[in-house]
Amino acid sequence: MPETERVASFTFRRQLTVEWGQCDPAGIVFNSRFFEMFDTNTWLLFEAALGVKPQDLGAHFGIIGIALVDTRGNFLKPVKFGDTVEITSRISEFRRSSFDVEHRITRGEELAVEGSESRVWTTRRKDDPDKIAAGAIPAEVIAKFG
Amino acid sequence: MPETERVASFTFRRQLTVEWGQCDPAGIVFNSRFFEMFDTNTWLLFEAALGVKPQDLGAHFGIIGIALVDTRGNFLKPVKFGDTVEITSRISEFRRSSFDVEHRITRGEELAVEGSESRVWTTRRKDDPDKIAAGAIPAEVIAKFG
Amino acid sequence: MPETERVASFTFRRQLTVEWGQCDPAGIVFNSRFFEMFDTNTWLLFEAALGVKPQDLGAHFGIIGIALVDTRGNFLKPVKFGDTVEITSRISEFRRSSFDVEHRITRGEELAVEGSESRVWTTRRKDDPDKIAAGAIPAEVIAKFG
Amino acid sequence: MPETERVASFTFRRQLTVEWGQCDPAGIVFNSRFFEMFDTNTWLLFEAALGVKPQDLGAHFGIIGIALVDTRGNFLKPVKFGDTVEITSRISEFRRSSFDVEHRITRGEELAVEGSESRVWTTRRKDDPDKIAAGAIPAEVIAKFG
Repeated sequence: MPETERVASFTFRRQLTVEWGQCDPAGIVFNSRFFEMFDTNTWLLFEAALGVKPQDLGAHFGIIGIALVDTRGNFLKPVKFGDTVEITSRISEFRRSSFDVEHRITRGEELAVEGSESRVWTTRRKDDPDKIAAGAIPAEVIAKFG
Repeated sequence: MPETERVASFTFRRQLTVEWGQCDPAGIVFNSRFFEMFDTNTWLLFEAALGVKPQDLGAHFGIIGIALVDTRGNFLKPVKFGDTVEITSRISEFRRSSFDVEHRITRGEELAVEGSESRVWTTRRKDDPDKIAAGAIPAEVIAKFG
Repeated sequence: MPETERVASFTFRRQLTVEWGQCDPAGIVFNSRFFEMFDTNTWLLFEAALGVKPQDLGAHFGIIGIALVDTRGNFLKPVKFGDTVEITSRISEFRRSSFDVEHRITRGEELAVEGSESRVWTTRRKDDPDKIAAGAIPAEVIAKFG
Repeated sequence: MPETERVASFTFRRQLTVEWGQCDPAGIVFNSRFFEMFDTNTWLLFEAALGVKPQDLGAHFGIIGIALVDTRGNFLKPVKFGDTVEITSRISEFRRSSFDVEHRITRGEELAVEGSESRVWTTRRKDDPDKIAAGAIPAEVIAKFG
């Protein structure tokens, strides 16, 4: 398998119960709330795989962050106030300086939402630290998700 | 102690870790997010005390809901991305058809945020079900918080 | 051009200035906020094209709503606290009972965010009004976006 | 009138229409959203009075910000999806290094929500710039709200 298509099998699961304030007048989760859930799950996926707390990730790896450049949600089943769901997240692909995260929200056996994120390993430019650049993701990071 | 000042000792505690999307450019929890936390804690306090799931509360007691009429937050210490806090909630006073909830957010030994809510036990008017009225809170409900 | 690929040229533009509470610790708009902006722009696009207020859309057309089934955001440039942006939205495709909305967020001449939504014209099933079905979008509706 | 009770008569008004994503399953604005509205109105009140854009306020006055330490909302009437409301804000009191903001949300002639905020003029300590201190609000700032 080429470097650019390494698939990570490490997965992170989180259970949550839908809150009143996350729902819209139709009584179901308002779509933007799923993107909050995805974002948090990505941070927690990294914490689980690397053992580094989200707030320490930048300092630990000398990066600015893991900037989101693209995200998508596909809403298959409505998720309602009080529903307990599980969000399962994993890296679906690592590239040189970016990676994709796959999120699946299930309610019992049923797949309710599929999501994805593309993120960039964001660093400061060595010749101009005020500027941002995509950095190479360390092999040790990728290995932890293997 | 008069009926209008019955203090409930039943408390509900929930631990949570502050998410990236809950924080503002100062790196601390944006104030509106605390009101989301308060609201959810009130639903969970009722579930813990009464054994009724939030989404079933209306049907179970024949009410429309527990409408929020007043809320306040007092921010003593900044709460930052990644901080783990505990939210402790209890009913501080039951009145005939309304009640107050007290919320305290602590980080370790430190009190970071104090909050309060006043809510009304909201029912439909018997003579005109399209209209809303404050109903008497059942004694059995109050007893569960005693 | 086949029925399933009718492109609507009617566009709706809205200007807004990024608020403090919409930004994350990096000082830029948190991604979920863009999906709030997209959702609102779709409602306003319909209001502008059809002359029907968002809260009246269901009753006016005898539908439950315009349920979101898929959405995507592509973040090309960071959008910062205080930035004034313009969100331009249009229907990119009408199908029998669903349609796609295209959103573009620009800051000055610069394209900052591209978004898309797929939505379903949602009705009640005639044989079982408790169940939801995709309904045919009225020709008069499509014509208004032409 | 003593220094600690100077009331500012300068007011800022903003009209807005309630969005779908701001409403809860009861079809009314979820309470945390009002605190987002209050926060934004305070920034815009300062911009209107001082002629300084929100994102420039810190640099312009050499402060960290106008930190919120206390806020309250009193919900008199439900505000529904699609309602057009007006938020009127003014400084109700300036103290040496803190001030109170009063917000009123009206729908037509009707007062729907009353809110308040207490904020601190936040600076860096001269002897230790890593620490935060309450600074004296410049007389020229207070004068602009007179």
